Amino acid sequence: MRVRLEEDAFGAVEIPEGRLWGAQTQRALAVFGASGPRLPVAVIRAFAAQKAAAARANLALGMLDAERAGLILAACERLGQGAFDDHFPLPVWQTGSGTQTNMNVNEVLANAANMAAGQGPGTRAPVHPNDHVNRSQSSNDSFPTVMQIAAVAEARGRLAPELARMADALEERAAAFAGIPRLGRTHLNDAVPVPLSQGFAASAAEMRRSARRLSAALDELLALPQGGTAAGSGLNAPEGFDRAFCAALSRATGEAFRPAAVKVEGMAGHDALLGLSAVCEALAVALTRLCNDIRHLAAGPHAGPGELSLPDDGLTSSIMPGKRNATLAEALVQVCQHVAGCHETVSRAAASGVWDLNVSKPVLIHALLGAMEALAQGMEGFRLHCLAGIEPRRARLADNLARSMMAATALTPRLGYDRVAGLIRRAETQGLTLRAACLAEGILGPEAFDRLVDPERMARGGLPDPDPSAAGESDEDPEHP
Amino acid sequence: MRVRLEEDAFGAVEIPEGRLWGAQTQRALAVFGASGPRLPVAVIRAFAAQKAAAARANLALGMLDAERAGLILAACERLGQGAFDDHFPLPVWQTGSGTQTNMNVNEVLANAANMAAGQGPGTRAPVHPNDHVNRSQSSNDSFPTVMQIAAVAEARGRLAPELARMADALEERAAAFAGIPRLGRTHLNDAVPVPLSQGFAASAAEMRRSARRLSAALDELLALPQGGTAAGSGLNAPEGFDRAFCAALSRATGEAFRPAAVKVEGMAGHDALLGLSAVCEALAVALTRLCNDIRHLAAGPHAGPGELSLPDDGLTSSIMPGKRNATLAEALVQVCQHVAGCHETVSRAAASGVWDLNVSKPVLIHALLGAMEALAQGMEGFRLHCLAGIEPRRARLADNLARSMMAATALTPRLGYDRVAGLIRRAETQGLTLRAACLAEGILGPEAFDRLVDPERMARGGLPDPDPSAAGESDEDPEHP
Amino acid sequence: MRVRLEEDAFGAVEIPEGRLWGAQTQRALAVFGASGPRLPVAVIRAFAAQKAAAARANLALGMLDAERAGLILAACERLGQGAFDDHFPLPVWQTGSGTQTNMNVNEVLANAANMAAGQGPGTRAPVHPNDHVNRSQSSNDSFPTVMQIAAVAEARGRLAPELARMADALEERAAAFAGIPRLGRTHLNDAVPVPLSQGFAASAAEMRRSARRLSAALDELLALPQGGTAAGSGLNAPEGFDRAFCAALSRATGEAFRPAAVKVEGMAGHDALLGLSAVCEALAVALTRLCNDIRHLAAGPHAGPGELSLPDDGLTSSIMPGKRNATLAEALVQVCQHVAGCHETVSRAAASGVWDLNVSKPVLIHALLGAMEALAQGMEGFRLHCLAGIEPRRARLADNLARSMMAATALTPRLGYDRVAGLIRRAETQGLTLRAACLAEGILGPEAFDRLVDPERMARGGLPDPDPSAAGESDEDPEHP
Amino acid sequence: MRVRLEEDAFGAVEIPEGRLWGAQTQRALAVFGASGPRLPVAVIRAFAAQKAAAARANLALGMLDAERAGLILAACERLGQGAFDDHFPLPVWQTGSGTQTNMNVNEVLANAANMAAGQGPGTRAPVHPNDHVNRSQSSNDSFPTVMQIAAVAEARGRLAPELARMADALEERAAAFAGIPRLGRTHLNDAVPVPLSQGFAASAAEMRRSARRLSAALDELLALPQGGTAAGSGLNAPEGFDRAFCAALSRATGEAFRPAAVKVEGMAGHDALLGLSAVCEALAVALTRLCNDIRHLAAGPHAGPGELSLPDDGLTSSIMPGKRNATLAEALVQVCQHVAGCHETVSRAAASGVWDLNVSKPVLIHALLGAMEALAQGMEGFRLHCLAGIEPRRARLADNLARSMMAATALTPRLGYDRVAGLIRRAETQGLTLRAACLAEGILGPEAFDRLVDPERMARGGLPDPDPSAAGESDEDPEHP
Repeated sequence: MRVRLEEDAFGAVEIPEGRLWGAQTQRALAVFGASGPRLPVAVIRAFAAQKAAAARANLALGMLDAERAGLILAACERLGQGAFDDHFPLPVWQTGSGTQTNMNVNEVLANAANMAAGQGPGTRAPVHPNDHVNRSQSSNDSFPTVMQIAAVAEARGRLAPELARMADALEERAAAFAGIPRLGRTHLNDAVPVPLSQGFAASAAEMRRSARRLSAALDELLALPQGGTAAGSGLNAPEGFDRAFCAALSRATGEAFRPAAVKVEGMAGHDALLGLSAVCEALAVALTRLCNDIRHLAAGPHAGPGELSLPDDGLTSSIMPGKRNATLAEALVQVCQHVAGCHETVSRAAASGVWDLNVSKPVLIHALLGAMEALAQGMEGFRLHCLAGIEPRRARLADNLARSMMAATALTPRLGYDRVAGLIRRAETQGLTLRAACLAEGILGPEAFDRLVDPERMARGGLPDPDPSAAGESDEDPEHP
Repeated sequence: MRVRLEEDAFGAVEIPEGRLWGAQTQRALAVFGASGPRLPVAVIRAFAAQKAAAARANLALGMLDAERAGLILAACERLGQGAFDDHFPLPVWQTGSGTQTNMNVNEVLANAANMAAGQGPGTRAPVHPNDHVNRSQSSNDSFPTVMQIAAVAEARGRLAPELARMADALEERAAAFAGIPRLGRTHLNDAVPVPLSQGFAASAAEMRRSARRLSAALDELLALPQGGTAAGSGLNAPEGFDRAFCAALSRATGEAFRPAAVKVEGMAGHDALLGLSAVCEALAVALTRLCNDIRHLAAGPHAGPGELSLPDDGLTSSIMPGKRNATLAEALVQVCQHVAGCHETVSRAAASGVWDLNVSKPVLIHALLGAMEALAQGMEGFRLHCLAGIEPRRARLADNLARSMMAATALTPRLGYDRVAGLIRRAETQGLTLRAACLAEGILGPEAFDRLVDPERMARGGLPDPDPSAAGESDEDPEHP
Repeated sequence: MRVRLEEDAFGAVEIPEGRLWGAQTQRALAVFGASGPRLPVAVIRAFAAQKAAAARANLALGMLDAERAGLILAACERLGQGAFDDHFPLPVWQTGSGTQTNMNVNEVLANAANMAAGQGPGTRAPVHPNDHVNRSQSSNDSFPTVMQIAAVAEARGRLAPELARMADALEERAAAFAGIPRLGRTHLNDAVPVPLSQGFAASAAEMRRSARRLSAALDELLALPQGGTAAGSGLNAPEGFDRAFCAALSRATGEAFRPAAVKVEGMAGHDALLGLSAVCEALAVALTRLCNDIRHLAAGPHAGPGELSLPDDGLTSSIMPGKRNATLAEALVQVCQHVAGCHETVSRAAASGVWDLNVSKPVLIHALLGAMEALAQGMEGFRLHCLAGIEPRRARLADNLARSMMAATALTPRLGYDRVAGLIRRAETQGLTLRAACLAEGILGPEAFDRLVDPERMARGGLPDPDPSAAGESDEDPEHP
Repeated sequence: MRVRLEEDAFGAVEIPEGRLWGAQTQRALAVFGASGPRLPVAVIRAFAAQKAAAARANLALGMLDAERAGLILAACERLGQGAFDDHFPLPVWQTGSGTQTNMNVNEVLANAANMAAGQGPGTRAPVHPNDHVNRSQSSNDSFPTVMQIAAVAEARGRLAPELARMADALEERAAAFAGIPRLGRTHLNDAVPVPLSQGFAASAAEMRRSARRLSAALDELLALPQGGTAAGSGLNAPEGFDRAFCAALSRATGEAFRPAAVKVEGMAGHDALLGLSAVCEALAVALTRLCNDIRHLAAGPHAGPGELSLPDDGLTSSIMPGKRNATLAEALVQVCQHVAGCHETVSRAAASGVWDLNVSKPVLIHALLGAMEALAQGMEGFRLHCLAGIEPRRARLADNLARSMMAATALTPRLGYDRVAGLIRRAETQGLTLRAACLAEGILGPEAFDRLVDPERMARGGLPDPDPSAAGESDEDPEHP
């Protein structure tokens, strides 16, 4: 492998030819290694926006001349387009401030800028990685700023739209199933009739709530620590740098970024990122329930409830030919288990800071972006290939409704709890249907029974209409005699 | 032990004399036992409000006559005052719907009402536990409603006020410390000067954010599942019961409760309660950092930073006489570890529902209330006995500031990063102070050095004012020659 | 409230009359408060054993005279019997070393000893809380020693026996169900026949594995940090104190306690306690699955699998009379969710130590003991009132077996995967049973079909015996032509 | 993109040319997508061993002819060498049984075998993916078997050796630091002198304990579910398949694999894998403490303890030139936070199974392998580039020792606790050193003081030797008068 020498204040280092990184990155590679998960590319892309906004703020405030600013901005543009993705070799398991990746960005941009200016890599002139690319900045404010930029981009760009589409799809299915009763189950057991639509509507409501929470979490994340520099005080950044930075970044991204009131808060802590992670975790819990409901309603198809039919995805068992499973629901449940783990990591990372800097930044953003990406991917697959094509199996729905003894609940306003309890005990003991037991004991006539115990009516809830034909019943004590 | 017999649809049961509970409670005791943590008394108190609101709604809608309603309401009032606290023996480890505790409430209220009406316990008349106390309700909508009522009461009544007081106290300390510089630390290591106040201000900002999150979480919790009855459809509850219930409850509590749009959502899932738990978990993370910051700043006092003095609480070591420790910070850190565990429980409990009912309700509310109580208690103790009395130790602050080499950072805008790096390397190698090294090399004169490297100025951030006296310097390239 | 004055090196403190605690405890109450969960009584009882063993070691090594030792030992005996349980008012949320509870123990024992010697409380003579009761000890080695003693006692005394009984009960049920086939379910869906016993046998194997893990964890916990005193070096403890202490403690408890090789390891870290917690967490996972399996097999009873009948516990719904649920399985699942939360707390607490002392001791032992107690209670209730009385519902088992198409799997060794896949597709499409489809296409005769597709045979696994009557089949390519 | 058509029982599918996978894999790609984390390559490699052992068992038991077995074995060999790594496009987020990856393996091996036999891809002859490659197997027993093989390989091949090297390195440092006292810290505060070596020795003991736990966990994992086929009963696998499989696999891997006693236990649950994950989590906790100890001892270097010097890795700050940090300790702490998250995922995944199959297999093995890889990488980097080069800074060690008041603890056996407490209070109040205060009050002479309060002696622990010169002191009451 051919190498070039690049020098910094600590001496010279050999760098593979063709790589735009510099001495600090190369030294970091030597100790952190090149295996393991790399720092997410979304972070590198967010750095492009961050360094460009910093260059614009420096230019506006007289901290950088127009030529250098122009060179840096041009390099940032290419970085944002992915032109330098191969020049970021560092893993997640690195310095906890993300300093080495910030250095990596500074070095790549400086080298790219200098080469555009006709210089070789490693010249550190006219653009110096620290004095110019990193001007008015520290890793300690830049990296958390980049974490927030990347998190906002992923959440706004992928997760929020997918959440909206999930809610739409759930509401669409709920509407399509309007008026269809199914047997409710509580404690997994036969209960009273409910609308088939209600679980889909409940889940849609949870998706809408998650969307509102996500929106609130993103608003918190728009307050950036940039301008705090090394330890929160803003040393070496000119007055107004934070505002100029946020203005430039907001123009470029369309997000209303603003300077944080207390900058060290976003450097030493990551409360706002933790808030976003908590939204993801709660969403994962809601999705777990949705998937499990659908898996259990579709289960069987012959010796289980079998009340839903899922779209045929052509996937089957390796030993049981033709067996079909709720594959996409299973995939999404696993995503949710992954998200719970990511939240655990984010929470421990966020709690680990002491003094003016949290040093679990790379693992935190890796976990958080991983959770959001998995959620977006898992929800999309589930929505497209499962949810959208779910259909009721009407014969099974009716059959299961007819089996449950719990329809007797409709009789309690008329007969009282204790009397109905006795009725059910007898029916179960004698192997009778509820109707047969009721008629056998002369408790109700067949018309009254059928009027009271009507699954469609029960699924709509409420009390039965008063019996118009039975004038003789009207003097009954409604509290049962 | 003397007993009375009480009968329900399943037969007669012996109940200890003097206990107001009935057959279902006694049967539950037989299987669940009386050891282990009891269901929180806050839940029992919330039931008093729930049963009263239900009685009022039933009365208004003609489902209960005035006499029975009056008897129930009177019993609810006594329940809410704690008169029956000893009559709720069931542990948290019971049916997952909380049914047995709902039954326990129904039985105690019915017995109390009947005894007030001159009947003995167990008469089930004139007030029947199911047909009257539980009228238009199921455990499945009542228990989660009660969970939400109890959570809102605890959060609004204790946690939110304590959060506000913590934020106030932190801001008060931040104001008191205005203008005092301390050595910043990043990666635990000596960094540049920062205001002593900034950590307190950052923590105050996090408390304010937690308070906003708490408020949003409570708003979500005001939507109640009551009216969904057994499985969400509202079977056996009259039209309008949900609205009448929420109106009565809101009048009694001062909270703006409203019926949930999809009632099964709060019965089968507990997304809103999970949201509240997530707020607690994030607050615990923020408090952990605050406590650790204070513990580390106060550490020593002789061989550590020792920059803060904590109030003397008179507590010491059993073997090292006179040793003082950050006892209240340690207590609060442990509360935070407890809260993380509670959130884990809440999250797993919330994720565990299938179909129309989540059956991890008792453990969920036990964990959530336990987390909130511990937070309120831990914060209060820490605030009163530690935070409010924290004082700076000025000599140590100044001494530590003077030791750090990182003051050199103030020179980089003037000298450039690489040159300062070399300067520091030499100072460290030769055991010189930064100032001595700087002067020895003739890089800066003593006045220029002292103007640039001034801890108070550095702690305020920004760049040094241009040197008015040094006209000769004005033609220097600000990008260092 | 009448008070007495008690003095220590920091001055005088008012203590309620009738309380045996002293100045440090009273001061601790003033800052930590008396609300919230108290330090578990099991810890106080373990302290009785620890202080007694320390007194014996001090006596043997000449550090304590016989009279004082005798007074202390007598007081320890009463402490261990619970005589002083009301004299330990401190909550879990206290100093992280448990120092205040160690002080509380020292004070109560000293006062009890002095009163037995005819002195008043607070005389600190002849027995001084620090110089005599705490002699050769620090809170920093005593409290973690006590944590380990308490954990071993709970694990050995309650959890291990209950684990063995659970395993026995599961094996008993597995034996009772021998030879009964049920429909297997994978992905919740109809699969091939399996023995009804296999789930019980699998769970028994997991209980046995948990028991082995528990035993290994307890062995780790027998190595005690006592003798490390303040910071691990053993300052102020005489040579041999650790061995004499462990010998005395082992005699008293019947456990083979031994001195830890590196004492600070059990003071600054709690790796062995974390190991025990991990055993509990894994057990909770295994129990969760067991409970869910049983809940799902019993679900229905009419519109679900309904393959198991659970013992009638007389508990029912408040609105659906006669409804029966798997109450004890739900209680145990909730215990398991609690245990997961406790492990989270233990893990964070264990990770939080810096330098020579972990200061999350009270919360750690509170969570760990809470997890073990809940497991023992939950398992016992489930075993006695649910597991032991589970019975198969044979008609449902047979009916469900007959419904599944997946019996076709038995044909694949004969017909090949692709051909069977096509057969099932056609049967499902045309609404035929598998047998009808098979016969209709002339693929197999009825005898061959019935021989191959026999649930009892399939549940035993393996391949069908070669057909003895079908000599003509013997030349068939076993790999299907 | 050029494609070929491949057909299975469900119809024809277009597959990109040059890809060896078949119809099921292609269909899975269509629904699960190709983005997100791929199933770990270690799982694919483990499949090579599993399919080879299955082929050998089938051959031995007459279930496969020699020609087909030979073709399959040759394909497995290439698979194990990584020749087909590009032919496994499926993500982790797929069917929870891992069926599609098992299908993918079956298809790739069949196609490779058939092409080696001169056939084109997709011919399904002479080797059929289900009837031959998957013979006597199901995904449901094969995939968990592969999970265990992969976990054992990673744990035995990378984690266990690194654990041993860490323990060696820690013991080496402990030996190198023998006899050097440092100031102990409890509650982060100045305490009594301890050996510098003790923290390293404690951590070494934890590594050795982790190694023993790992070994026990691996023994549990050697019991394989292979032979259970679809749902645990072993349908369609010949008698003895499990033993023949384990024998072949053991020969190939050198591990003593054995058939599980109850096969469904390793299919429906993953208790043994969870056990391994728990070992990793506890190790992560121990490593967190080690890293934090080292970071805090090295902190400063000027305004913190600064008692350790870490090797210079040439990495520095982007704004504070020359600043050095404990980079590798921070990287390892982040690994530990990642491991905690992985364990959370594993635990939830393990708890999620119902009936005869756990369907969170891909996410579980992804998390577990990810945790082990990160641990091995993080420990290695930390050991080589940090731990091995740690050196004491003797001047700082001595200076910090001299500052602490807690040396007074050495006086308590002589003077009693209360008297020393008073002495310290006065010294602190008057700003005296302990020695000055002691001498000023005439409590001890300078020789006695220096003999009792000797950091090196105190760090060794125990009591001071009796003063040989002070015959006059010998009649002092050792319990202090």
